[in-house]
Amino acid sequence: MMILPESLLEAIRTKGSIVLATHLNPDGDALGSLFGLADILESMGKKVFRLLEKPVSPLYGFIPGSQSAATDQDELSAFVRQAGEDILCVSLDCGDKNRLGKFGPELLKIRPFAVIDHHKGNNGFGDLAWIDPKRSSTGEMVFDLAAALGCTISVNAAVALFTAIVTDTGSFRYESTSAHTFDVARQLVNLGVSPDMVSRNIYDNFSVARLQLMQMVLATLEVLIEQRLAVIRVTQEMLAQTGCKLEDTENFINLPRAVTSVQVAVFLKETAENKVSVSMRAKDTCDVAEIAARFGGGGHRNAAGFMAVDVTLSDVWKEMLPVLQQELDR
Amino acid sequence: MMILPESLLEAIRTKGSIVLATHLNPDGDALGSLFGLADILESMGKKVFRLLEKPVSPLYGFIPGSQSAATDQDELSAFVRQAGEDILCVSLDCGDKNRLGKFGPELLKIRPFAVIDHHKGNNGFGDLAWIDPKRSSTGEMVFDLAAALGCTISVNAAVALFTAIVTDTGSFRYESTSAHTFDVARQLVNLGVSPDMVSRNIYDNFSVARLQLMQMVLATLEVLIEQRLAVIRVTQEMLAQTGCKLEDTENFINLPRAVTSVQVAVFLKETAENKVSVSMRAKDTCDVAEIAARFGGGGHRNAAGFMAVDVTLSDVWKEMLPVLQQELDR
Repeated sequence: MMILPESLLEAIRTKGSIVLATHLNPDGDALGSLFGLADILESMGKKVFRLLEKPVSPLYGFIPGSQSAATDQDELSAFVRQAGEDILCVSLDCGDKNRLGKFGPELLKIRPFAVIDHHKGNNGFGDLAWIDPKRSSTGEMVFDLAAALGCTISVNAAVALFTAIVTDTGSFRYESTSAHTFDVARQLVNLGVSPDMVSRNIYDNFSVARLQLMQMVLATLEVLIEQRLAVIRVTQEMLAQTGCKLEDTENFINLPRAVTSVQVAVFLKETAENKVSVSMRAKDTCDVAEIAARFGGGGHRNAAGFMAVDVTLSDVWKEMLPVLQQELDR
Repeated sequence: MMILPESLLEAIRTKGSIVLATHLNPDGDALGSLFGLADILESMGKKVFRLLEKPVSPLYGFIPGSQSAATDQDELSAFVRQAGEDILCVSLDCGDKNRLGKFGPELLKIRPFAVIDHHKGNNGFGDLAWIDPKRSSTGEMVFDLAAALGCTISVNAAVALFTAIVTDTGSFRYESTSAHTFDVARQLVNLGVSPDMVSRNIYDNFSVARLQLMQMVLATLEVLIEQRLAVIRVTQEMLAQTGCKLEDTENFINLPRAVTSVQVAVFLKETAENKVSVSMRAKDTCDVAEIAARFGGGGHRNAAGFMAVDVTLSDVWKEMLPVLQQELDR
């Protein structure tokens, strides 16, 4: 594992005001590591600014401190001005400076700018970077950061970090789950986390409408090429009928992906009239990042996507099918 | 936690032949703890008899050793005869002697008869009992047993025990998941378990037919009493249409249960013409064990069920509804 740089510890120890930021559309790891670290830094007597583009979605409202995020440019500017030189910015779980969102330019002016992240593609922007792609989550890294700083972790911070780990490992299921991940989970439970409470908040939070939408989306399932390729669809009409938003389709792609024989799962989403967003998941040796790139998108080998405009779901599918066939024939 | 009785360790240390048994319709914890312990005992030089009523279902075929189960009465009798007095029977994960299945009477004649289990309702049948309802799984207990015996755990045994823990905690999500559970998981990963491999075998093993069945079952969703009660149904016709078996509906009840507002989820299953099996799940203070008991069934507060004959799904539902309404009004 990559060692925590002493320069990062030193910056945290010496600076009095710290801005914490994360990536656009923050997931559980982004929010959990941000609010967890905020609590830890405040226990050290630091002034902490929790920056987000938007208030935390109700889904993650259970994370302690999630109501205390600031989303205002003026507030940020005032905090930065007041701190003077006694400031540090820490970006958490963000693999690329372009994903910092609308506050990015303002944030990147703060010196020093530190990066704590576990994404493979992170090229180490900022002045101080601790990037460890072997870690399951940024939350797992923040736990070790607290230990290195000699901080005690409150139960609130522990819940935030546990949430980070659970969401980014799919509840201790993904490849990145290591013995160290389990060791951190053990210590967080000893600090007072109830795994049951966190998991219920993350997984048992369906609305009736979302379950109905899942049924409709599943009804569109098509399986092709010896059951190695699966596709599901969501249309604006389905969203209107159930009263759901597009974000309610999160994780639906894991359903066709869970079919043993399926090597590539595709989710075609009508985001507006003649606007399509495509998510792909691959198993084994299949590479969907390449396919996404051909259509102007991007991502990882196993999870990638792209957007298309002035087309219907069927248009996009017709264009994709031969490319997918080729990838599966490889 | 309840301490491992020295008498149990002593019996294992001194006896040369050991029969391992578990409950009817064994789940991942039953099978994982049985095959894990078998491997551990063989590493101690014991003769081990792995007894099951039926060969292991393909779902759990990835558990190392699962092909070596014996399902034959004559084979069991011969093993017992040959061992003479130098024998021990260990029942794993079985909360009640009546759940030992068709070999129960023959097994219970073996002396001493030991019980290792974590079910709350276990009244401690057998001569030597180690029952600890604080444990997440029998697999977690077998890990500690191996440690107490001073055995090294092979990677095969580690995979079996990890499978036991994952299935009985819903992947480290249920209330029974403790700091100790995470500590055992950590050690099992250090012994060579890939959490990713085990989880893919347990969770990503849908057939296309099963996903289609899930869609059909979800299409029957009804939500009543201010969205606090949800019911889904499966009919023989749906099974025939998809080519699925009843066991393919496992875990489907967790879908309506995952709706935030739902306090009781009911799954009505037509097991044959005019035969119905009912599963119920409750959250919060609701108690479905009581309801199941009224209909001649049983279970836990949060998970219970019953069978009914000479009735249709609708008949059963009509009878259940007022009782459920009463429970929700309590």
